[in-house]
Amino acid sequence: MQAELLAVGSELLVPGRQETNAATLTRYLLERGCKVVARTTIADDAQALTDSFRLALSRADLVIATGGLGPTEDDLTRECAATALGATLIREPSYVEWLKERFKRFNRPMPSVNEKQADRIEGGRLLMNEKGTAPGQLIEREGKILVLLPGPPREMLPLFEREVLPIVEARSSGERIVMRVIRIAGMGESDVEQLLAPIYKTFSNPVTTILGGASEVELQLVGTGSNEAEAGERVEALASKIREALGPRIFTERGESMEQVVAAMFMRRGLRLALAESCTGGLVTSRLVSIPGVSAFLDRAFVTYSDRAKSEELGVSEETLRAHGAVSEETAREMAKGALRAAGADVAIAVTGIAGPAGGSAEKPVGTVCFALDGALGSRSTRRVFPSADRERIIQQASNSALEILRRALVGFEG
Amino acid sequence: MQAELLAVGSELLVPGRQETNAATLTRYLLERGCKVVARTTIADDAQALTDSFRLALSRADLVIATGGLGPTEDDLTRECAATALGATLIREPSYVEWLKERFKRFNRPMPSVNEKQADRIEGGRLLMNEKGTAPGQLIEREGKILVLLPGPPREMLPLFEREVLPIVEARSSGERIVMRVIRIAGMGESDVEQLLAPIYKTFSNPVTTILGGASEVELQLVGTGSNEAEAGERVEALASKIREALGPRIFTERGESMEQVVAAMFMRRGLRLALAESCTGGLVTSRLVSIPGVSAFLDRAFVTYSDRAKSEELGVSEETLRAHGAVSEETAREMAKGALRAAGADVAIAVTGIAGPAGGSAEKPVGTVCFALDGALGSRSTRRVFPSADRERIIQQASNSALEILRRALVGFEG
Repeated sequence: MQAELLAVGSELLVPGRQETNAATLTRYLLERGCKVVARTTIADDAQALTDSFRLALSRADLVIATGGLGPTEDDLTRECAATALGATLIREPSYVEWLKERFKRFNRPMPSVNEKQADRIEGGRLLMNEKGTAPGQLIEREGKILVLLPGPPREMLPLFEREVLPIVEARSSGERIVMRVIRIAGMGESDVEQLLAPIYKTFSNPVTTILGGASEVELQLVGTGSNEAEAGERVEALASKIREALGPRIFTERGESMEQVVAAMFMRRGLRLALAESCTGGLVTSRLVSIPGVSAFLDRAFVTYSDRAKSEELGVSEETLRAHGAVSEETAREMAKGALRAAGADVAIAVTGIAGPAGGSAEKPVGTVCFALDGALGSRSTRRVFPSADRERIIQQASNSALEILRRALVGFEG
Repeated sequence: MQAELLAVGSELLVPGRQETNAATLTRYLLERGCKVVARTTIADDAQALTDSFRLALSRADLVIATGGLGPTEDDLTRECAATALGATLIREPSYVEWLKERFKRFNRPMPSVNEKQADRIEGGRLLMNEKGTAPGQLIEREGKILVLLPGPPREMLPLFEREVLPIVEARSSGERIVMRVIRIAGMGESDVEQLLAPIYKTFSNPVTTILGGASEVELQLVGTGSNEAEAGERVEALASKIREALGPRIFTERGESMEQVVAAMFMRRGLRLALAESCTGGLVTSRLVSIPGVSAFLDRAFVTYSDRAKSEELGVSEETLRAHGAVSEETAREMAKGALRAAGADVAIAVTGIAGPAGGSAEKPVGTVCFALDGALGSRSTRRVFPSADRERIIQQASNSALEILRRALVGFEG
């Protein structure tokens, strides 16, 4: 079963405004085995809205529109849905009465414009909305379902749960979806694709999507089965082959973030971590601190942005800074040693680099970042060049690499 | 001039995923007088995507699709756009060579799947992408413009600014839109609304929208005029009244982030800053370090998560920790003093709080955060309770407050 969502309202297309109903509905529907294949946010324009209804009805089994059910001239959802279906609108006297009663309860006369909220699409039924004046509507036609719901989430969601979900569940009986998210670090999207395509292409179920991120690649496996166990088995059949091919390059199959994975491993191993950050400016530490329970393994970190701070806080020697520069494996190694000592930790990681836009040279271009690990997981250092001119991106990638270096050291993977 | 946006990719329709290009493009286009009337996110399905291209081209002057230009089988944007236009795809040998060169620079052979990224839609032209392998494409046909852009924002935006915006500007003559974004810190959305509604409701041009964010409120003033100067004057007429009402609660009228504003002020004033962070774990520092040129005022920072770290690195006394706890204004004040001294800075800010989910009490619930400022901008401390149960949200809000405390001290505003 496939669904398409329409969010109606010019106000949703204002810069900075985030439409939220679509995301909510997507999750609820997928959990019931119904995939959302398109989501559109559309202005209050009769022709455009009618055309969008027509297109959605031509390709989805379930079409849900939210918003545009109010009493004003801009509220066109009812009319456009009816036009797209080739149906007429019938004013429901009983609903007009209900509306008048509702206004009376709030000691206000009902404006006449509100009467159009009682217009029902022929062949459909009104869905009573206890939290507002706009009723929903549900029309079944030639095996397809069209649902109109009010825009405000606190009105939309109760109607959806009460009136729509049971129908989705009944329809999608005999089909369950299980989704697995596999995340991979230290490989590019096309390398992952080339390695895995021969494997996942032999499976039509689950369906695999590859998504390239900042410096991780995400595989989404969506399996279908007549029940959850069967769908899960199908996902696992492919996941086990992917696991064979990628080994410890996979950092999670449970949708966790890199910082969640690294934090969980430090907690499990009972090792204490210290950090020394220069160009990443505290980002690696703050990503770990975003995880609950971090105090079990993280006591302190040093952001040493200047040479002087590196010397004073971490004991990096002036000769090293002079001979090799602040961005060097030598400096990174001394930063890690200094952090390890100062914090009395078991493991330390250090990051120092040139995030730009200034400060690059032929030998050390912008994007050059040096890392060092020291302590109970071994001592090593590495230098990487992130091919970017974007400061924030270089910083983000450097923080990912720092976490990946920790993770690989924790699982004993040399790569 | 009206635009329609298509974001392509099944991965964008997965629960929890937020598509961001549409929002960025909406803002840029509106500022050039081009209104977005529909935004669609669509799965990697050839038929559905082709139909969506057809519908968009039938009703908008400008259609921009983002994503689906990668090398994999799922990347269908080129093919579907060509089909919708009734055009063929032509492989560009020179672009194939460029791609091979690009891979060579990174010491990797080009996978053969990447060749299809050199397929140009007949009648259009490729838009060179310096930041990735996927070129954009631009086709003008019967007065309409179709643009294909890569999905990653850092690749999409430079291409859009360089290749698309100038065309939009040239086309949208006759009516100019000027948008002003005013950002306000330290006030809730409904307080801003209540204070400003009597003012902005007397203006039909510009149109005002209020958006509430994490801990800032954004006002969007959209003015229309026959030329830019006229539109700008209308915006300024309202903006000056808003400025009178809000004063230094406004932190920018130029769309900057809080960290940009604070960093610029520190640079201008020639003051050096040190930071001591506990619950924010380095987030305040990393937000400042994301700004180029930060070394002019930021030398080092201390993430002192444990009591011991607070004592050892910042000299917080054990009595203070015992008597008042790590989350107290007293501890925050000693942290700030310690950071000031250790870094030899002019100004220091300290943050210590309970981000949860554990660690709360009746007296100090989760969300309690104490701040202290010390040095050349004065000494003060404050305690706030952020009403949230979400760890990351509390940390984010605490980091916003820390920056706002610095900003208010810099402008000499007591609030």
